[in-house]
Amino acid sequence: MITEISDPHDERLALYRDVKDRDLTGRGGLFMAEGKVVLERLFSSPLAQTVSVLTTPERLKGLAHLPEAPVYVVAQELMDDLAGFPIHRGYLALGRYAPPKSLSEILAGERVRVLVLSGIANTDNMGGLMRNAAAFGVDAVILDATCCDALYRKAIRVSVGGVLQMPHYRVDNLVETLRARDLTPYALSPAGRLTLDEVRPAARSAMLFGAEGPGLSAEVMAACTTVRIEMSGGFDSLNVATTSGIVLYQFCR
Amino acid sequence: MITEISDPHDERLALYRDVKDRDLTGRGGLFMAEGKVVLERLFSSPLAQTVSVLTTPERLKGLAHLPEAPVYVVAQELMDDLAGFPIHRGYLALGRYAPPKSLSEILAGERVRVLVLSGIANTDNMGGLMRNAAAFGVDAVILDATCCDALYRKAIRVSVGGVLQMPHYRVDNLVETLRARDLTPYALSPAGRLTLDEVRPAARSAMLFGAEGPGLSAEVMAACTTVRIEMSGGFDSLNVATTSGIVLYQFCR
Repeated sequence: MITEISDPHDERLALYRDVKDRDLTGRGGLFMAEGKVVLERLFSSPLAQTVSVLTTPERLKGLAHLPEAPVYVVAQELMDDLAGFPIHRGYLALGRYAPPKSLSEILAGERVRVLVLSGIANTDNMGGLMRNAAAFGVDAVILDATCCDALYRKAIRVSVGGVLQMPHYRVDNLVETLRARDLTPYALSPAGRLTLDEVRPAARSAMLFGAEGPGLSAEVMAACTTVRIEMSGGFDSLNVATTSGIVLYQFCR
Repeated sequence: MITEISDPHDERLALYRDVKDRDLTGRGGLFMAEGKVVLERLFSSPLAQTVSVLTTPERLKGLAHLPEAPVYVVAQELMDDLAGFPIHRGYLALGRYAPPKSLSEILAGERVRVLVLSGIANTDNMGGLMRNAAAFGVDAVILDATCCDALYRKAIRVSVGGVLQMPHYRVDNLVETLRARDLTPYALSPAGRLTLDEVRPAARSAMLFGAEGPGLSAEVMAACTTVRIEMSGGFDSLNVATTSGIVLYQFCR
């Protein structure tokens, strides 16, 4: 349903107010998507519902498919005023993430690939990791309590909406979670014992990544087969999202 | 030589003024490095000279080795005022990039790996590509005229200084440059004919990457063996820096 709105105080626009602050202080189970490609992924996501869409008369024409949710159409200036900064792309949407299956249901198959993240607090890296997880079709992503929200606006954007197609779950104890589900854990670290080439992934494999710098905790490392990527350049430094791309390429074929 | 400066109008500080604007409008052959790790890479770079360093009394203690170039020590407030924004890390340096060898000299060996970039205008992606090039020890990076400067402050930072250890050259015509040096060109594209697995890299290999979205031009593609990365997720989207990590891992072993 398309509704044109010109009153900046219209209550239906309230959740689009001060987008940046809201992203930081909690969104009550909602997330904010931006940009055409991300909105299209939201509309087709089996894991998220579209709550509403905010766009301009001009940009509305660019959307081939509209969701059943309300679509509010406002002038570009009103959109910018509401959001608190210029929304050059002209597309915002509110969504609610609700994966229909539990982690155990998702991981019921014989062949399983899980991406496991600890301490990923950088939204760019979170987005990049989720983009790779979606591209290589891992079954699920598991996050510990020290990771940032994977549904921050910027993480969603960097993932090109991939996070909206990727079942992800936050757990209290990574090692116990993996052990209880009979997943073989591989921890990526520059200090890994095996090279990536030497690994023959188990049927049910979990690939663990920590933040650049601190890496994974000693406790987590001790519970895993540790793996390193051989580098020839004397410059032992790869971005964590790039590292995940290399590992997922090897594990998910 | 360490010099404490308290006069904001001291001429020796002039090049540190308005860092952001200067980065955009040209720096007369100089580049600006920031952060401790990047400065240390600058000091040890065989490809770049340190022109001067700007730091604070507190941060000065954190540098294990100092270059022969002048080190100016100023109060944090003066540093922030000069730069035009807060320099939380407390380290800036001016450098001059001057690779001692020509591209032909660098590529004289029998086994050569070259990263070739076309239209990479995003400084994050440029930095990520350079970081990977350094990590996997490619011999050189070749840029076409439509790439951004690899020595933008942000590109250097994202590369974690890797770009300062990586010989890179801008050329007018990529295809002619590669042909004249007898390099076998592999173009990465989602529409590539071969999968990455199917490629047996030639002894003298060039790996070509275009910007996300437009990709490489038809002319460049036509001159190359085209290669794609197989993805299983139904989400055919990888970041260009991540793609380069996967390809370099395969090609540079």
